Amino acid sequence: MIDKLIEKIKKTSAPVVVGLDPMLDYVPEHVKSEAFSKLGETPAGAAEAIWQFNKAIVDATYDLIPAVKPQIAMYEQFGVEGVKAFQKTVDYCHEKDLVVIGDIKRGDIGSTSAAYAAGHLGKVQVGSRMCTCFDEDFATVNPYLGTDGVKPFIEVCQEFKKGIFVLVKTSNPSSGEFQDREIGGRPLYEVVGEQVAKWAETCMGTDYSRVGAVVGATYPKQGEVLRKIMPKCMILVPGYGAQGGQGRDLVHFFNSDGLGAIVNSSRGIIAAYKQDKYKDKGVTPENFADASRMAVADMIGDIDSALKSKK
Amino acid sequence: MIDKLIEKIKKTSAPVVVGLDPMLDYVPEHVKSEAFSKLGETPAGAAEAIWQFNKAIVDATYDLIPAVKPQIAMYEQFGVEGVKAFQKTVDYCHEKDLVVIGDIKRGDIGSTSAAYAAGHLGKVQVGSRMCTCFDEDFATVNPYLGTDGVKPFIEVCQEFKKGIFVLVKTSNPSSGEFQDREIGGRPLYEVVGEQVAKWAETCMGTDYSRVGAVVGATYPKQGEVLRKIMPKCMILVPGYGAQGGQGRDLVHFFNSDGLGAIVNSSRGIIAAYKQDKYKDKGVTPENFADASRMAVADMIGDIDSALKSKK
Repeated sequence: MIDKLIEKIKKTSAPVVVGLDPMLDYVPEHVKSEAFSKLGETPAGAAEAIWQFNKAIVDATYDLIPAVKPQIAMYEQFGVEGVKAFQKTVDYCHEKDLVVIGDIKRGDIGSTSAAYAAGHLGKVQVGSRMCTCFDEDFATVNPYLGTDGVKPFIEVCQEFKKGIFVLVKTSNPSSGEFQDREIGGRPLYEVVGEQVAKWAETCMGTDYSRVGAVVGATYPKQGEVLRKIMPKCMILVPGYGAQGGQGRDLVHFFNSDGLGAIVNSSRGIIAAYKQDKYKDKGVTPENFADASRMAVADMIGDIDSALKSKK
Repeated sequence: MIDKLIEKIKKTSAPVVVGLDPMLDYVPEHVKSEAFSKLGETPAGAAEAIWQFNKAIVDATYDLIPAVKPQIAMYEQFGVEGVKAFQKTVDYCHEKDLVVIGDIKRGDIGSTSAAYAAGHLGKVQVGSRMCTCFDEDFATVNPYLGTDGVKPFIEVCQEFKKGIFVLVKTSNPSSGEFQDREIGGRPLYEVVGEQVAKWAETCMGTDYSRVGAVVGATYPKQGEVLRKIMPKCMILVPGYGAQGGQGRDLVHFFNSDGLGAIVNSSRGIIAAYKQDKYKDKGVTPENFADASRMAVADMIGDIDSALKSKK
């Protein structure tokens, strides 16, 4: 799957992932009204609204991008009905041949991580049958529990040719509270990054590993250091756009082959129709997905010119 | 809810939580056969099997214990159908007036943690209505992202009188890989523990805080240190029984008031019927839940005598 991701990045010339994090506030009123009139102001109604919202955005952008990253919390908050919408979104993105990165940030003791890995990336045994459940292509993983919390994911990646992105340096303002603490003169995120590089070596695709890392766009200097520590890891870079990261901040997340990073934007794309920039181009809430397409094109252009000016 | 938990611990004289982590291997054949004959060897069949298994164990133990801790991974691995079984389990335990600790180990950037907190502990807004979804009483939280990943949980705890247990020192063998790394001469878990103590002060119940901590029974010395660092925190202690922890390892997790810790056992109770000890007492797979009741009583006795010999 890492090879497919890279192939799709090359084909689209877009090291870009659309974050399908559909907060209800982002969903235009007419989409919510229609869902609520069918199913009420209920978790089922909310789940229908975010599914219809996602579907329109995927339809408007899928040919421009290699991958999507649904954030499961935005579905799980609506309980069982929300999780159904997550599954529908994953399945629909697969129909459109998109690589699906499940932003689930799971991580637990060994036997528990094995259950998450089987359910999200692999297969689970039920009696004599092996069943596929969520079936994302990649998942994000929290490393706080150490190797035996991550290894079951790596094993599933090997068996089913899937991938993971391990949290190393997250994009949020307080990520430094623990991740930046100095251990023998180096921050914890470097120590974690070195371990991720070791895990990565055990699980290689053709050029890159099935084990990648998450490093926030909001920390470009740290990204530059981590790029060198983890040469074979694809870096998933959240924090572009609404969280403050810009194209010029991202150049050092990439390797000299122009690959090695994939940049996520969520709100900046899925709620683009709310920005004056796109309103001025004639976007209304009714054709919100057109703004998402424009925002994807703008993001690809921004990153492309930043990478070109690096050379 | 922290006050209710403590009240129930006092009433049952049992600082004990039953971990409802129903791996299919633990479920007796006759329970699986019945579920599979109705729903096939499918995720729905698996979900039905674990739900029936849970129900029997809850029925056999609920009057002895204050709380249960369903591990969501064991449900989520079966996709949407598994999540339905998780919800049924939470609801049924509430009917039996048990405190429900959702072992979900979530944690993300602020807006995402807010969604998890609302869905699992609080309410989510859908149009003009506030809806309750999973509705556990407590949830476990991963601290790797720092304060802004934890604060949304604390805010929901304050608003809805719920609680969290933050991972500090986990029970698994490789928990030391990052958690024990020295920062200014002290291990990371102490640094995290000090921060948990600060969060705890902002969210007090009557005697204990709504913000507690997870510290593994497998690390009794670390538990003793952390007990002092976090005096107002209830400590959730996994790793008793099957993972190797024993009653005598646990005494220093408790405060001098005899409170302050709640000890989880999962496999040791829910799969007790597989142990020779209970087979010798006439337990068969058909009456598996009787073994769970015996194992709960044995666990309560073990912890009680350890605490008495401490005095």
